[in-house]
Amino acid sequence: MSSWLNVSALLTDLYELTMSQVYVERDMLAPATFSLFVRKLPQNRSFLLAAGLWPLLEALQDFRFSEEDLAYLESLKLFKPTFLDYLKNFRFTGEVWALPEGTVFFENAPVVEITAPLPEAQIVETLVINILNIETAVATKAALCVIAADGRPCVDFGARRTQGLEASLHAARASYIAGFTATSNVLAGKLFGIPVTGTMAHSYVESFPNEEEAFLAFGRNFPENTVLLIDTYDPLRGAEKAIEVARRLSERGIRVRGVRLDSGNVIELAREVRRLLDKAGFPEIKIFVSGGLDEHKIAEIVSSRAPVDAFGIGTKMGVSADAPYLDLAYKLVEYDGKPRLKLSEGKVTYPGRKQVFRRFDPSGLFYEDELGLREENLIGNPLLKCFMRDGRLLMENPPLPEIRKKAAENLKSLPEDIRKGQRTPSTRISEKLRALYSETVERIRKVL
Amino acid sequence: MSSWLNVSALLTDLYELTMSQVYVERDMLAPATFSLFVRKLPQNRSFLLAAGLWPLLEALQDFRFSEEDLAYLESLKLFKPTFLDYLKNFRFTGEVWALPEGTVFFENAPVVEITAPLPEAQIVETLVINILNIETAVATKAALCVIAADGRPCVDFGARRTQGLEASLHAARASYIAGFTATSNVLAGKLFGIPVTGTMAHSYVESFPNEEEAFLAFGRNFPENTVLLIDTYDPLRGAEKAIEVARRLSERGIRVRGVRLDSGNVIELAREVRRLLDKAGFPEIKIFVSGGLDEHKIAEIVSSRAPVDAFGIGTKMGVSADAPYLDLAYKLVEYDGKPRLKLSEGKVTYPGRKQVFRRFDPSGLFYEDELGLREENLIGNPLLKCFMRDGRLLMENPPLPEIRKKAAENLKSLPEDIRKGQRTPSTRISEKLRALYSETVERIRKVL
Repeated sequence: MSSWLNVSALLTDLYELTMSQVYVERDMLAPATFSLFVRKLPQNRSFLLAAGLWPLLEALQDFRFSEEDLAYLESLKLFKPTFLDYLKNFRFTGEVWALPEGTVFFENAPVVEITAPLPEAQIVETLVINILNIETAVATKAALCVIAADGRPCVDFGARRTQGLEASLHAARASYIAGFTATSNVLAGKLFGIPVTGTMAHSYVESFPNEEEAFLAFGRNFPENTVLLIDTYDPLRGAEKAIEVARRLSERGIRVRGVRLDSGNVIELAREVRRLLDKAGFPEIKIFVSGGLDEHKIAEIVSSRAPVDAFGIGTKMGVSADAPYLDLAYKLVEYDGKPRLKLSEGKVTYPGRKQVFRRFDPSGLFYEDELGLREENLIGNPLLKCFMRDGRLLMENPPLPEIRKKAAENLKSLPEDIRKGQRTPSTRISEKLRALYSETVERIRKVL
Repeated sequence: MSSWLNVSALLTDLYELTMSQVYVERDMLAPATFSLFVRKLPQNRSFLLAAGLWPLLEALQDFRFSEEDLAYLESLKLFKPTFLDYLKNFRFTGEVWALPEGTVFFENAPVVEITAPLPEAQIVETLVINILNIETAVATKAALCVIAADGRPCVDFGARRTQGLEASLHAARASYIAGFTATSNVLAGKLFGIPVTGTMAHSYVESFPNEEEAFLAFGRNFPENTVLLIDTYDPLRGAEKAIEVARRLSERGIRVRGVRLDSGNVIELAREVRRLLDKAGFPEIKIFVSGGLDEHKIAEIVSSRAPVDAFGIGTKMGVSADAPYLDLAYKLVEYDGKPRLKLSEGKVTYPGRKQVFRRFDPSGLFYEDELGLREENLIGNPLLKCFMRDGRLLMENPPLPEIRKKAAENLKSLPEDIRKGQRTPSTRISEKLRALYSETVERIRKVL
């Protein structure tokens, strides 16, 4: 298997297993459908960009309890031998419908719908929510950066401050899907084939007697890949030294690709540095900016028309700092042929297996989504596809650039006001689904 | 090795490797000291609780480039054969000084100081920042919850919405260190020996024809561990059904441990449910509350004197939602016997190897920290200890309950205003350190 996640079947909440023991004991093995969706978008989001499906599908395929896992569960003195036997042979045999990665979506639309024997669908809950949550949160934040950068390349610098090492891989993958062009994360490069890139650190410059020596040594070592960090001591003097070094390197046929600014008033500095570079005859040397960037700071730089050519974006994208989690819920919507739901003040869960139908206006821009039952045949493109049946993948993992292309098309299809966060579209609910909701509520109220 | 992190040496930023090629080529292998510290605490934090050191130490011990890693690096056509050879034999041979896990700390205090041959200290940068960042951020958030809960047990329910699966393990570990009593994360239970616990989900209740059947089946399966979720349809009717079931189960000698409220106005509901339980003769049945909790919501519940006995705390703790990252920097402070620093507007990095001296007032409460050079002998307890020398651990990984005890003592030693976030103490800087800073700045300015 190609899964790069170190998935353990024990990475679940204890109650998934205790509940499942009851299901197994009582032979409650009929198909259950769980729907993963966001009831309300986070405050600063007007759309979400789906990511994380393929890592999830691979994890579902690999999902096994090892002998060691079972020994630990036995040691808890909670579980019956018959249930531990059930876990020993556990395989995920269910069906997965989902929005393809790179699809833009809104409130109430299922990102994933899983139908499987009740304990199977229950036991994978923690896994399903977790993987979709991190990748979708980060892909969305990264998409906002890409939109703000307005064509300038964005590079993932998030690895050092993502929430754990594994999260850095999710972030590299999700940001690439969202339109980033490269990552500094070497392992992500190896695993996903994302272009890897980087410049140099302040510590590098500080380790040398002076900036010139540091810059020269780097240029000689990496003649094709030299971006000089010029703000270790004084950015404008750093720029002058970079120019001096660029001259000396050019005598050896080495061309400096760029300079990086990581602090200070980058708008003013970029203008000044550009002027110096141009004056010195280096109009081709790019200016790369990093340091605490997010979509707002990028938009500010872009709208200032500062001569910034590319952005290195780290922490705030990597942890989706202003919305570090989504309110993703994995809700039972059908069991044993009957629609199910939780009654809760102010929170509506629509029962049944579903489909999302997307409509476009005549110019090809997104117009609205209608949420209906899966069997309905409403106007619009049905967005949810079946990816897995009987626990088997129905297709190959698509190459990441293909997913990235889909994301770009989806983002491009958004009207300006949604792209820029000025409007969050509501999802229309089909008549049949509203009727099913009312019927189900009534049925439940009767037995209360 | 006991490391539970799936560490790959490639999980690093590309520039760590490109810079190191230059170091190796130029024989810049003298010892470098890097200091990991927070320049400024996040907005909503008045202290930080150190966590993540042991996972880091184990990862440093395991740090190797595999044949596959080297083949990938070669394929990038960036690196020279001599450098790839260097990586092939790479071991971390350095020295690690650090604050023991469970130590409270403030701005400018090094959490970790690493001294190693320059490329070694550089290559591990991403790893060092990443692990300390996530565990310290979460441990601090969890500590705030524990303080707010004022003696009531707090349980980690974070697994489903942490940023990746690995992050859920960091969160379970860090929150246990901070004083949580248990986790729902089964793998964390297995790996760290943390008690595991859980209740039941709404989906469980919905899968049965009615709540009574759901409750009864659970009680019979888990006679020692039944906490009934009562708000699937209507919390007060749910409480009545729980009472009915508790009566029937008690006839079989089974005692329901508690009920859980996961939504609604939990303060009012808890009062009402307590009244119902007491009236029915079940004063021993506990009320457990969950759902969107953080330190503020917990403080509100506690100060209302609502009869809530324990808290299940998930997402907001697990991602440290209001401060999802720390501004942890890993800065070169000495190389080849010379103090180093970056000159930057408004940002001071103190050069040299350091020690933090902690002082207490006569009542035993924290009074102040003074940051000095490691060789200084200032008044107060020196906080940084040497954990690793020549790449070898100098001691055994302490049992987690011991770290947890240290954290409890540290938190208890904080004056009320710091514990409650009303004051953030500044760290005093020793005279010698200030002098060294000025000298170093002057020395650098001369060569600029």
